[in-house]
Amino acid sequence: MNQPVNNDPEAPEPQPIYDEDGRLRPDWLDALRAAIEAGDAEALREQAAPLHESEMGDVIEALSADDRVRLVTLLGDAFDYLALTEVDDSVRIDLMESLPNSEIARGVADLDSDDAVYILEDLEAEDRDEILAQMPVFERISLKRSLDFPEDSAGRRMQTEFIAIPPFWTVGQTIDYLRTNDDLPDEFYQIYVVDPGFKLLGVLPLDRILRVQRATRIEDLMNTQLREIEATLDQEEAARIFERYDEIEVAVVDEGRRLVGILTVDDIVDVINEEANEDIHRLGGVGDEDISRSVPGVVRSRATWLAVNLGTATLASLVIGLFDDTISQMVALAVLMPIVASMGGVAGTQTMTVTVRAISQRELDRNNAWRLIRRELLVGLTNGAIFAVLLGLITGFRFADAGLGIVIAAAMVVNMVVAGGSGILIPLTLEKLKLDPAVASSTFVMTLTDVVGFFAFLTLAGWWFGLF
Amino acid sequence: MNQPVNNDPEAPEPQPIYDEDGRLRPDWLDALRAAIEAGDAEALREQAAPLHESEMGDVIEALSADDRVRLVTLLGDAFDYLALTEVDDSVRIDLMESLPNSEIARGVADLDSDDAVYILEDLEAEDRDEILAQMPVFERISLKRSLDFPEDSAGRRMQTEFIAIPPFWTVGQTIDYLRTNDDLPDEFYQIYVVDPGFKLLGVLPLDRILRVQRATRIEDLMNTQLREIEATLDQEEAARIFERYDEIEVAVVDEGRRLVGILTVDDIVDVINEEANEDIHRLGGVGDEDISRSVPGVVRSRATWLAVNLGTATLASLVIGLFDDTISQMVALAVLMPIVASMGGVAGTQTMTVTVRAISQRELDRNNAWRLIRRELLVGLTNGAIFAVLLGLITGFRFADAGLGIVIAAAMVVNMVVAGGSGILIPLTLEKLKLDPAVASSTFVMTLTDVVGFFAFLTLAGWWFGLF
Repeated sequence: MNQPVNNDPEAPEPQPIYDEDGRLRPDWLDALRAAIEAGDAEALREQAAPLHESEMGDVIEALSADDRVRLVTLLGDAFDYLALTEVDDSVRIDLMESLPNSEIARGVADLDSDDAVYILEDLEAEDRDEILAQMPVFERISLKRSLDFPEDSAGRRMQTEFIAIPPFWTVGQTIDYLRTNDDLPDEFYQIYVVDPGFKLLGVLPLDRILRVQRATRIEDLMNTQLREIEATLDQEEAARIFERYDEIEVAVVDEGRRLVGILTVDDIVDVINEEANEDIHRLGGVGDEDISRSVPGVVRSRATWLAVNLGTATLASLVIGLFDDTISQMVALAVLMPIVASMGGVAGTQTMTVTVRAISQRELDRNNAWRLIRRELLVGLTNGAIFAVLLGLITGFRFADAGLGIVIAAAMVVNMVVAGGSGILIPLTLEKLKLDPAVASSTFVMTLTDVVGFFAFLTLAGWWFGLF
Repeated sequence: MNQPVNNDPEAPEPQPIYDEDGRLRPDWLDALRAAIEAGDAEALREQAAPLHESEMGDVIEALSADDRVRLVTLLGDAFDYLALTEVDDSVRIDLMESLPNSEIARGVADLDSDDAVYILEDLEAEDRDEILAQMPVFERISLKRSLDFPEDSAGRRMQTEFIAIPPFWTVGQTIDYLRTNDDLPDEFYQIYVVDPGFKLLGVLPLDRILRVQRATRIEDLMNTQLREIEATLDQEEAARIFERYDEIEVAVVDEGRRLVGILTVDDIVDVINEEANEDIHRLGGVGDEDISRSVPGVVRSRATWLAVNLGTATLASLVIGLFDDTISQMVALAVLMPIVASMGGVAGTQTMTVTVRAISQRELDRNNAWRLIRRELLVGLTNGAIFAVLLGLITGFRFADAGLGIVIAAAMVVNMVVAGGSGILIPLTLEKLKLDPAVASSTFVMTLTDVVGFFAFLTLAGWWFGLF
C-alpha cells in the first residue's frame, strides 16, 4: 500500500519499517537501539536517512526517553526537526528540555514557519526567547509575529511562506517569475494576487495557470470568490471552513485584511484529529492527556474528575440515606435500585453523546434544537416503556411480587424520560453558558439519572407498600 | 472570515446566509420557505444560485422532508446534486426515494465519479441499476467499476478523473497538452506519469512543472518516491496514509498496480470526521445514527445497548442479592455501595477512553502495550489510595464508625485497580479478537466495576462486622 518506486538501479531497496498491521517492526527497532547503544552515528544516519518525518516520529515515540536524546544528538545535522511535529506533546517537550538551545535553534531555522511555531509554542518563554535569539533575523521576526497570535488561532498554525503577485501580470510573466525565482516555498498549490498594500484580490490555483495561454492576464483568470481566515480566528473554526468548502489552502489575513500567511489542509487534518481526540477524552472524563504521559501526570489529570464524581456519588448516596427505613423493611429495594439508575445512565449517555458531538460539529442549533428535544423525550418515553415492561416482568417473577414489578416499571419510565431530556438539555445549557459541553455534561447527566433513579424507585415503593 | 470579494460592480452583494455563530439565518430560511410554499421557481433559483454546495446542504437539512422534495423539484436543472454529498445519510436517502430516478440520473451524471458513487451507493440495488441505465455510457461504466469495490474501500471513494502522461514528454509538451485539452478534470493538483500499460511511474505536483524550463524532461522531474493506495484498501487505512505523509492527493491502483483513480484530501477529511463520529458514538452506546434520524430509527438503534445493559445491571443486582442478609443487618451498606461502584465506573471509563482512542489512532501496539498496562495499574492504585483515604474519612465521620470507613476505603482501592486494569485489557482483548473496542468495551468495563465494587464492599463489610 505504500511501495516506493525507484528508477535508480544502484539505490538499495529501502527496508520497510512497518509490519503488515502498520506497526514498527521489532527487529528494525532493535537494530536501531543497538546502534544508539554503540554510539554508531554512521550506522544511525544510514538507518534513519530514508525515513519520512512521520516515520521518524513513530520511531522516537517507540524509544525510551534517554535513547531519544542520544538518537537526536548522534544524528546531529542529519536529524530533521520536522519529526518533532509528529510526536505526542509530552514526548516533544521532554526531548526539547534535554537538548541544548543552540541545537534547537539550528534545527528549527530550517523548518517552514508553521512547523517551527508548532515546536516552539509549548516551550517555557525563557527557553523560547533564547532559541529565537540564536536564529537568523528574518526567521526570527516571522516566528515572533506568529507567536504573538493567540494560542490555537489560525495565526499560530499558518505558514508565512507563500507566493504573491500583482493582478496586472500575465500568465507568461508569472511562469517566468516562478522559473527564475530561487526562493520559492518547498511546495505550493495556489498563488495569491495582491494589491500594493498586500490586500488580497484573488487566488489562482495552479491548474488554472496551466490551462490557458501565456498572454492571459492574471486579473481575468484569478478566482475572486475568495475565502479568507482572520489570523485571530480559532483553529477549529478555520477547520470548519476547510471542511465546508473542501479547500486545500486558504489565505490568512490580519485585521487590516492584509495577507499574512496561508493555512494548508495538512495542518487542518491535524486540527480535526486533535479536536476529535479532545471531544472523546473530555466525554470520557480525561483531560488533554496522551499515551506517552507518565504516571504522576496521568494521576493528576484524572483526579479532578474522580473528585467531582466522589461529590456527586455522595449526593446520590445521601438520597438513598433518606430511605434507610424503607430499605430496612424491604431489602429487595436495595438489590433492585441500581438497575433503574444504571438504565437511566445509559440512556442519558446515549442522548448526551449524540448531542455533544452534534454541537461540536455545528450540526445542532436553534433551527433544529426543539425538534431534537422533542425527539429525545419521545425516544426516552418509548424505550422507557419497552424496558419498563421487560424489567417489570423480570422483577415480578424474580421476587414473586407483581407490585414490585409495577413499581420498578413506573420508576424506569420516569428515569428514562428524565435521561432523554437531561441528555440534550444539559449540553445545550452548558453551550449557552459558553462552557464546553463535552467536559461537564457527563457528570451532570449521570448524577441526575442516579438521583432520579433512586428517588423515583424508593419513593414509589414506599408509597405503594405503605412503608413510610 | 468568509467574505466573497467581487470585482464586478454590477453584481449584487451576495447576502450572507449564516449569522455570526455560523448558523443559518432564520429570516433567510423563512424567505426560502415562503418561495417554496408559493411554488415560485424563479425566486428560488435567485436565492439558491449563489450558494456553495455545502451551504445548500445545510439549507436542505434545515427544511422539512416535504419542503426538501419541493425545493429540488422546483429548482430542476439549477439544483446541483453535489449538495447531496453534504447532508446526513438519512436525509439523502429519504430525499432520493422521493425523487424520480430519471431526475437523479440527470443530476448525478454531471458529478465527479467519487461524488456520484457517494450518492448512489446507499440506494437499493434496483433503484441504482435503473438510474445507472439512464446515464451516458462512459459515466455508467466508470461508476459501475467504482461500485464494484467493497464498501468503505479506497475504490469507492476515489475519483476516476485524472491526468496521465508518458515519461518521455517534456514540460513544454505537457503544458501545451493542458492548454489545448478541453476535457480536463475540474480541479487538479498533480499529474500522473504512466507507462503504456498504465502502470504508475511517477507523480508531478503542479508546482514542479512551473519551476522549470520547458525543455525539462518529465522523467527527470517527476517524483518517484511514490505512495500508492490499493483500491481495495479500507478508507480508514487510506486516511492514515494521508495523515502520516501530509498528502494532498494519492494515486489509487488495482491489483495489477495499474492507475485507476485518485484519492483527494477533501474526501479524506470527511473520512476522518466520520471515523471520529463513529468512535464517539460507539463509546456512547449509540449506533451509526445522525441527528436527522426519526424517532423509530433512534429507538431501535439505542435499544440494543439498553437491552445489553439490562442484562448486565441485572447481573450486578444478583450479586447484591447474595448479600441481602448482610444488608438487612446494616442498611448503611446499601446507602454506601453505589459510591464504590460509581468511582470504579469513572476510573474504568477514563482508562478505556484513552485506550480505545489510542487503538483507533494506531498509537497503541505491541511496542508500548506493556508499558501502558503497568501505567494504568499504577494510576489506578495511586488514585485508588488517594480517594480511598478521602472516602474512608467522610464515611467514618458520617456514620461515626471508623470500621465502616476502613472497609469502604479497602473496597475502593480494589475496585480502582480493577478499573484501571480492565479499562486497558478489555479493549486490547477485543481488538485482538478483531472486534471493535469502541463498541463493546464500555459495557464490559462498567459491568465489571459494578460487580467488583458491590462484591468487594459487601464481602469486606460482612467479614469485618461478622455479619455472615
